[in-house]
Amino acid sequence: MAKSAKSKAIKETLKLCRLGIDTYHENVAYLHRECELYRAEGFQALSKVKICADGSHILAVLNVVDDDSIVTSADLGLSEEAFTKLGLSEGHLVSIEHAEPPASMNAVRRKIAGERLSQNDFYHIISDITDKLYSKTEISAFLVASGQTDMDRDEVLFLTRAMLESGEKFDWNESLVVDKHCIGGIPGNRTSMLVVPIVAAHGMLIPKTSSRAITSPAGTADTMEVLANVELDIKKLHDIVRKHRACLAWGGTAQLSPADDIMIAVERPLGIDSLGQMVASILSKKLSAGATHLVIDIPVGATAKVRHMRQAQRLRKLFEFVGDQLGIHLEVIITDGRQPVGSGIGPVLESRDVMQVLQNSIDAPADLRQKSLRLAGRVLEFDPDVRGGKGFEIARDILDSGRALEMMDTIISAQGVQKIKFELGKLEHEVLSPATGVVINIDNLQMSHIARFAGAPIDKGAGVDLFKKLGDSVKKGEPLYRIYAEFPSDFNFSVALCERNSGYQIGKKDQIPKAFVEF
Amino acid sequence: MAKSAKSKAIKETLKLCRLGIDTYHENVAYLHRECELYRAEGFQALSKVKICADGSHILAVLNVVDDDSIVTSADLGLSEEAFTKLGLSEGHLVSIEHAEPPASMNAVRRKIAGERLSQNDFYHIISDITDKLYSKTEISAFLVASGQTDMDRDEVLFLTRAMLESGEKFDWNESLVVDKHCIGGIPGNRTSMLVVPIVAAHGMLIPKTSSRAITSPAGTADTMEVLANVELDIKKLHDIVRKHRACLAWGGTAQLSPADDIMIAVERPLGIDSLGQMVASILSKKLSAGATHLVIDIPVGATAKVRHMRQAQRLRKLFEFVGDQLGIHLEVIITDGRQPVGSGIGPVLESRDVMQVLQNSIDAPADLRQKSLRLAGRVLEFDPDVRGGKGFEIARDILDSGRALEMMDTIISAQGVQKIKFELGKLEHEVLSPATGVVINIDNLQMSHIARFAGAPIDKGAGVDLFKKLGDSVKKGEPLYRIYAEFPSDFNFSVALCERNSGYQIGKKDQIPKAFVEF
Repeated sequence: MAKSAKSKAIKETLKLCRLGIDTYHENVAYLHRECELYRAEGFQALSKVKICADGSHILAVLNVVDDDSIVTSADLGLSEEAFTKLGLSEGHLVSIEHAEPPASMNAVRRKIAGERLSQNDFYHIISDITDKLYSKTEISAFLVASGQTDMDRDEVLFLTRAMLESGEKFDWNESLVVDKHCIGGIPGNRTSMLVVPIVAAHGMLIPKTSSRAITSPAGTADTMEVLANVELDIKKLHDIVRKHRACLAWGGTAQLSPADDIMIAVERPLGIDSLGQMVASILSKKLSAGATHLVIDIPVGATAKVRHMRQAQRLRKLFEFVGDQLGIHLEVIITDGRQPVGSGIGPVLESRDVMQVLQNSIDAPADLRQKSLRLAGRVLEFDPDVRGGKGFEIARDILDSGRALEMMDTIISAQGVQKIKFELGKLEHEVLSPATGVVINIDNLQMSHIARFAGAPIDKGAGVDLFKKLGDSVKKGEPLYRIYAEFPSDFNFSVALCERNSGYQIGKKDQIPKAFVEF
Repeated sequence: MAKSAKSKAIKETLKLCRLGIDTYHENVAYLHRECELYRAEGFQALSKVKICADGSHILAVLNVVDDDSIVTSADLGLSEEAFTKLGLSEGHLVSIEHAEPPASMNAVRRKIAGERLSQNDFYHIISDITDKLYSKTEISAFLVASGQTDMDRDEVLFLTRAMLESGEKFDWNESLVVDKHCIGGIPGNRTSMLVVPIVAAHGMLIPKTSSRAITSPAGTADTMEVLANVELDIKKLHDIVRKHRACLAWGGTAQLSPADDIMIAVERPLGIDSLGQMVASILSKKLSAGATHLVIDIPVGATAKVRHMRQAQRLRKLFEFVGDQLGIHLEVIITDGRQPVGSGIGPVLESRDVMQVLQNSIDAPADLRQKSLRLAGRVLEFDPDVRGGKGFEIARDILDSGRALEMMDTIISAQGVQKIKFELGKLEHEVLSPATGVVINIDNLQMSHIARFAGAPIDKGAGVDLFKKLGDSVKKGEPLYRIYAEFPSDFNFSVALCERNSGYQIGKKDQIPKAFVEF
């Protein structure tokens, strides 16, 4: 009576086809509703399916197709990224299986219920995230469950360690490998492109890898790319660093803390950025890049990521605790985050600011120069031969003498000069002061938003050029800033946005908020 | 010098086209990478875009297309559901805008940071969710942030009220409108299809609307559909209830607590089901369906949603508190959730069980009959003329006399007899006992999983038929249950799953876990 299917389990097979659809960091599989082998709808309520062939597999979200011209009932279509990841050719036979939810979701549910997780729990979660077993909603659940009120500092350590061990690690075989990192949120804050050449000119090893912007108008990698190639393979990156003591490269080619990249892609659009996640994200990246000494910049201001001094101090302690446990020498610097740094926002404009500072141009933004010198000074003081408090002067000498510019040129040549000459966007719009007075507020978030709408960072020449900064006097009708865009649709979006809220407030000198900062 | 774009803001337009892709509860828009009007990539990192035309709009996730045969550079493609929602014809001109994150995400972020939210915060969040302004990751963030450790009972009340007021409400103009609801998690637990005809035969008004399964192998609507049409328009539903005092319909045609449907579709696959969310979900649905008196069934067992008596009592108090505040007379019953109820799991098998009980067949599962009578008894006791403790006997009389069956036939005729004759799946597999002994455990989750893999509820004839229940003696090699499937691929998945874990444990009588229940 017992009829078993075990012996005659036929391998169901569909023909793989590649669909020209870019689904942005989410694998999508396309199955025809009338597929003869699988009940497309039966799979769909589940969050994911497993596409298998020749021992390899990927997980994907399933979309059901009713149009034969997209996929036929004998095909399985994959989105661009999913197709690349599976790594097979079109026409290859594949099968579908139900994908089990990742086992570590149990730990996430325990975290939601208020439990403290162990080092092992974090290892499992991060390993499953790295293996792309989590859907975006599951990542979102983990991020919220381990948000700032819910993770103690040991758990932040556990998470950092798990992220660090999830990927590759650079080993530079030197006892002093320095780095600097800003927690982000301040447009125009391109200090890395100044700190790196200054510090490297002093002879310190500073292999700087940076990210591209996710929700901001420019990352260091986007801006450096205006000047040089930033997508270096690992070997080339190592060769450059060995030879010149420095690089300014995109970190995405190395698998450094890969879980971080996956989580950030969900976290940023959600606008949640808890202190614990921030510490784990930054320290796992820096440690896996091989840094032994690190300066961290925490800007504080009403529209910065950190809004109060007490929160900045809490974050500093957390960085210090986790850094000490993981054996990195770490200095936290709290800086003025009340307004954008420099004049330009967007890759071309920001690279202009950086080059003006390096060239000691009279047009160079003083705040970008000053902040970069102070940060570089702190990094230089990691050198045992530099006396405490003397770093700033050494940094200034290196910059003023042109040695920093020379080092930047060396780095650019080594990485490869950018062949495309990126220009400022041709469409321009000036925003004028509605009153006479002084600038009493510049909203970091709104300025980022306006530059982003104008097309930055995808259009490198798009962005915002600021003519006035906090405390500057303005007359009614005088320009506050200029928007640059390449595409008419972007231009219109950006202009419409700044017409709703320009991001500037004009008032009286005594209304300027105090900076609660160390420098 | 100031060049303003304001005056010449051109309305950019793309031709709308409908793509035959079913993206399962997520609007997706498809834009060609080489689109002349918009920079496709610039939009993509943002979680959503706004598709606008003639004053109406929808929000959608953006996929970028590289294949002209899917959409051309002058087109904007929409997924099936998105196209239907926008409600325009193909070729209509549409424009794209950046979609702002919903304003109420600020409240979600405050919740993540540990703040208590106000009634107004919940109104805004639920209103934005109802308006489909939240992405799935944002919904996931809200669900986790308002999970069980993070919401006090006033907040559960606020959430319930917000959900209740987000949709339509039925008003039956009677002082006694009864309903029953189980919190779910127990396969085969089709008591509603027995309680409704029993209670209606007594003359009480019981307009029962039910859901379809999301992650379970059958919902009441899926099972009732084996016998009758369940997709009734609102007018027909009202007419039937007026005339016959009852219905057993799918609730999806009415906009009752629409936010609930949206949230559940994210929550279930995540496997998170906090007590507060559960109370808000159930009470908002029941109150909007016009119930004045409600019996709630909380099954407790090791593989049920509620695993301990103390948790069941906590949930009961939460139901009572919120129910009292919102003016519904509510009785919570804690039941035995150690194993599936009845014999069949899956729509056809479960409808067979129900009909056997109604027909007083000797094959009728005793546990399903007994549980339904007790629940019906408690509902009957809402009748002021029924003496406390006498409900069970009245229910039994109604069932034994055939009046419940008669009422069920009336309801089926009124809703429309199902024209399709659903049969059991043709592929069968029996699972045999690995030992001689008694059944000491049946895992609810695993049995649901096996039935689901076999194709339930989409294939109505797919599922699992249990031959042995807790405490039954079995000999080695004797069948424990039989799997039915229609599709070979589903059949293989299901058989492979039960070979990994059959869901049954055989042991000694004293190993059977005690039921911690009232009845």
